[in-house]
Amino acid sequence: MQKLKIIKVGGKVVENEVALQQLLTDFVQIPELKLLVHGGGKLATELSARLGIETKMVNGRRITDAETLQIVTMVYAGLVNKNIVAKLQARGVNALGICGADLNLIQAHKRPVKDGIDYGFVGDIDKVSVDKLKILLQNDILPVVAPLTHDNNGQLFNTNADTIPQAIAIALSSYFEIDLIYCFEKKGVLLNEQDDNSVISQITPELFKQYVNDGIISAGMIPKLENGFNALHHGVKRVIITNTQSVGNLHQGTTLTLL
Amino acid sequence: MQKLKIIKVGGKVVENEVALQQLLTDFVQIPELKLLVHGGGKLATELSARLGIETKMVNGRRITDAETLQIVTMVYAGLVNKNIVAKLQARGVNALGICGADLNLIQAHKRPVKDGIDYGFVGDIDKVSVDKLKILLQNDILPVVAPLTHDNNGQLFNTNADTIPQAIAIALSSYFEIDLIYCFEKKGVLLNEQDDNSVISQITPELFKQYVNDGIISAGMIPKLENGFNALHHGVKRVIITNTQSVGNLHQGTTLTLL
Repeated sequence: MQKLKIIKVGGKVVENEVALQQLLTDFVQIPELKLLVHGGGKLATELSARLGIETKMVNGRRITDAETLQIVTMVYAGLVNKNIVAKLQARGVNALGICGADLNLIQAHKRPVKDGIDYGFVGDIDKVSVDKLKILLQNDILPVVAPLTHDNNGQLFNTNADTIPQAIAIALSSYFEIDLIYCFEKKGVLLNEQDDNSVISQITPELFKQYVNDGIISAGMIPKLENGFNALHHGVKRVIITNTQSVGNLHQGTTLTLL
Repeated sequence: MQKLKIIKVGGKVVENEVALQQLLTDFVQIPELKLLVHGGGKLATELSARLGIETKMVNGRRITDAETLQIVTMVYAGLVNKNIVAKLQARGVNALGICGADLNLIQAHKRPVKDGIDYGFVGDIDKVSVDKLKILLQNDILPVVAPLTHDNNGQLFNTNADTIPQAIAIALSSYFEIDLIYCFEKKGVLLNEQDDNSVISQITPELFKQYVNDGIISAGMIPKLENGFNALHHGVKRVIITNTQSVGNLHQGTTLTLL
């Protein structure tokens, strides 16, 4: 099978011009087929503040009312997405920016109200349709995906930017040998949060449980790793958590493994 | 040759929910291959006002400073584009929203300062590359194009939404038999502005000159028709100016013809 690298870059990277330029320069040198998924939450929060709209987060998720949905649609699918596309084109890569509504890529439903919390227009993924996405990849087009989905009935949704690359990776895993790479600001998952060099090189599901119990892995890292293990259970070959500087040299990060 | 209809819808349509829904319902019933180009200027002006940024127009063109470029990128390529895509998907059409940076579709350069007027990040078109766009069309994907371009060096530009469909139509005219249709709020070009039914059914270049001299055709309609005649001179088969209600029945509008 042909190899494909699916890379998620977080908001802190896309919002830092220097870090983003460096990442994209490294990224385009990866010889395999590639797909990029990006966030952009901090820019959405900034625009909300300028428009006088309060940002409400619950468990790290943005409560997305109608106005906030407009903001994330503008920031993620417009500002962030098209600037990344233009920067990739400048590097000679034929990029195409999409969101989950384009090509009917990702269908979702409104997250149900639970424990009295209504997340608003936040979508939980039902189905990923990759028939058209495959055609893009086979024609040397590099998809750049903004974290929005739709319900196939005209409604857009804000959807977690860590879940989207995992869902796309699983859907494409019958057709490609996939490395799923989460890029963030640390070199990998750290044994000691104070020591940037204490990267754990491999984590199995058993070690994961132990690290969570010991408080070594906590907060936003837990769903990230859960997403990663879920991908491995559904046919994705490798899952790596690393920093943007290591995109070209994946031996430095944390590799998730089932064994 | 296979037929292709390229349809431009103006800002007044995309900003009116009822008009937009009706247009899209009629639009998806057109049996031929289709491509949609949209505007969105009024929404960009509204967002600018909410952010305290003054909108400056010269000769109907938006002066686009760095902040205004961010706004049009968000509104055109994000808000308007993805909402149209979601509404087309809801109608069972596999739409894909793009701008001129995606697929390296439209390369442009910054409009030079002339007569002391600096339009800022406004791009004049140099080159349209349709090799990837053809692949989309051949694979039942309906492109929805936002009026932005890029310089292939990482810079996005705001570009006139009437010029873009004309440039794409010319570039595709070697491969498809193209109808280029400009949809606006009137039934067509009117002989008498006060009489909505005084549609001129055909205009030749000679008649155009005469109507301009007589003041019957003026203001923003002049560049629209110039764009249209330019398209006919470069291989586009038909150019029609009509209202959105007539998208399914093109005999009601104004047809431009070279003879």
